[in-house]
Amino acid sequence: MHELLPPVTLQQGLHWLDLAGVLAFAMSGALLGVRKRFDLFGVVVLGCVTAVGGGAIRDTLTGQTPPLFLRDETYLWTALLGAGLGFAFGERLARFERTLSLFDSAGLALFAASGALGALNFGLGPLGVVFAGMLSGVGGGIVRDLIANEVPEVMYRRDQLYATAAAAGALTVVLLHPHVTPFQAQLGGALVVVLLRWVSRRGWVSLPVRRLPERP
Amino acid sequence: MHELLPPVTLQQGLHWLDLAGVLAFAMSGALLGVRKRFDLFGVVVLGCVTAVGGGAIRDTLTGQTPPLFLRDETYLWTALLGAGLGFAFGERLARFERTLSLFDSAGLALFAASGALGALNFGLGPLGVVFAGMLSGVGGGIVRDLIANEVPEVMYRRDQLYATAAAAGALTVVLLHPHVTPFQAQLGGALVVVLLRWVSRRGWVSLPVRRLPERP
Amino acid sequence: MHELLPPVTLQQGLHWLDLAGVLAFAMSGALLGVRKRFDLFGVVVLGCVTAVGGGAIRDTLTGQTPPLFLRDETYLWTALLGAGLGFAFGERLARFERTLSLFDSAGLALFAASGALGALNFGLGPLGVVFAGMLSGVGGGIVRDLIANEVPEVMYRRDQLYATAAAAGALTVVLLHPHVTPFQAQLGGALVVVLLRWVSRRGWVSLPVRRLPERP
Repeated sequence: MHELLPPVTLQQGLHWLDLAGVLAFAMSGALLGVRKRFDLFGVVVLGCVTAVGGGAIRDTLTGQTPPLFLRDETYLWTALLGAGLGFAFGERLARFERTLSLFDSAGLALFAASGALGALNFGLGPLGVVFAGMLSGVGGGIVRDLIANEVPEVMYRRDQLYATAAAAGALTVVLLHPHVTPFQAQLGGALVVVLLRWVSRRGWVSLPVRRLPERP
Repeated sequence: MHELLPPVTLQQGLHWLDLAGVLAFAMSGALLGVRKRFDLFGVVVLGCVTAVGGGAIRDTLTGQTPPLFLRDETYLWTALLGAGLGFAFGERLARFERTLSLFDSAGLALFAASGALGALNFGLGPLGVVFAGMLSGVGGGIVRDLIANEVPEVMYRRDQLYATAAAAGALTVVLLHPHVTPFQAQLGGALVVVLLRWVSRRGWVSLPVRRLPERP
Repeated sequence: MHELLPPVTLQQGLHWLDLAGVLAFAMSGALLGVRKRFDLFGVVVLGCVTAVGGGAIRDTLTGQTPPLFLRDETYLWTALLGAGLGFAFGERLARFERTLSLFDSAGLALFAASGALGALNFGLGPLGVVFAGMLSGVGGGIVRDLIANEVPEVMYRRDQLYATAAAAGALTVVLLHPHVTPFQAQLGGALVVVLLRWVSRRGWVSLPVRRLPERP
């Protein structure tokens, strides 16, 4: 398998996967902005911040400044495109919750895996890699929800493994990394995220919630 | 024009303009803190964070750590002064919404232009410069509103171009930069921001909002 | 006193104090997560972010990337432990508000002092050191409250000096630093924080609040 994919192609593959995730997250951010009745600019900014937020957190934590999205303008153009689509087709996109959720899972999977890979290359230990990968996956969505003044939904989606899936994907990258190519490790990690998302949507897995009376 | 202003004076000019923006933002943050019934310290912290937040985001994104406000103590002293004024004269400042709005526009204009200039010097591409300049302008206000637990007002001020004005100012810096001195480029960018703010306050321009039913 | 404590032991002492603060903050974050009915993962993430947030802000501001908690995995394991305890004993911990508050004060004191020390070693001026120390102390709690979608309680605890105590502790480190060992300066700063917290809980000190009618 190694010989069939020269290094340049691997990097191109990773790049395209990353851009697909950026597009998906930009659309999800833009749609929330539309629902919050933000103006055109607010929608575009929320879309862009959602799209590049996870990567910006990853790069800032691992000292790679300026973050990738400022060094390679393709990311911002892709985010603009996704946010523009979200604004233009807002109402119609809303009918396709399932498709949007697919996009979202793809973005989560790809960001978690590429974040884990970046942290590994940076020499972090296994727990740090899982944390950084998880944050890269869910960071954009957390920033999106904070700006929209909502509790990040990632915090209580117990019926749908979300951050947990991202962490499991990052862990997969850690475990695969010594044995396969980086591209294969990233793909493996991303597949684990998608698989866990699918399994949990079927209702086969969920996370416990501890009950407590609210503060008076 | 170039010969009349030696480099030291240019830098001094930029420095003073920056400090004026810091003072304005500190007062706006402190006033929101007073309205939210924060205590003295909360008001001062909110004022300072609003004042230095935009610059901190700019410097962190462009890898200039520690950020300028930690290297040059003048910034924090100015922010403290502005926040203290906001606390001391809180009720009376509230009567002068128009004056405060002027201050706010000045801060927005100056931060967007200096952020764009910094990003240009750092070698970012045009879209990255516009994004960094815009974030430098609106970043402090976004952090202020997040801490005050409100949706950042920048997101839905459609009747008043705000982030859009900051982005247009940053774009002006990009376009002017090859032809004039940095000081002139910054001034030009700042003027565009102020002009767009004024035009939109007259009701001549506004941004579209896409309607959607709220999530059930 | 200097001769009795060789450098390695000093560093070990600082390290253990830091970890105690991490444990305390992780429990406070996890407990808020339990109260907000976050799922297991949300509780763990909120605990970890609260625990490492202050240090991450400190290290990012002073250009020490990746932040300490990613370089030394002990921090994340300790945070996981604290968050796990918070989830496991949630309801029972809630009965011990006073004990939790003690933990919280310890974390505040230790983080403010170590943040101030780090900023001093980085060469910042006195106001910058106080600001960085204060942010290191209260940063984790602010991030915790932002994610839980609440106004950071640090902003209006006027009956209990909190951020003010952190700032006073950082100032103490600045004043002690030229005269004693770093370990002693950190201990002195932390003691001032704890003392001020205790004095203000007795009702002997409080901060003014400026009254203003709410925005219409």
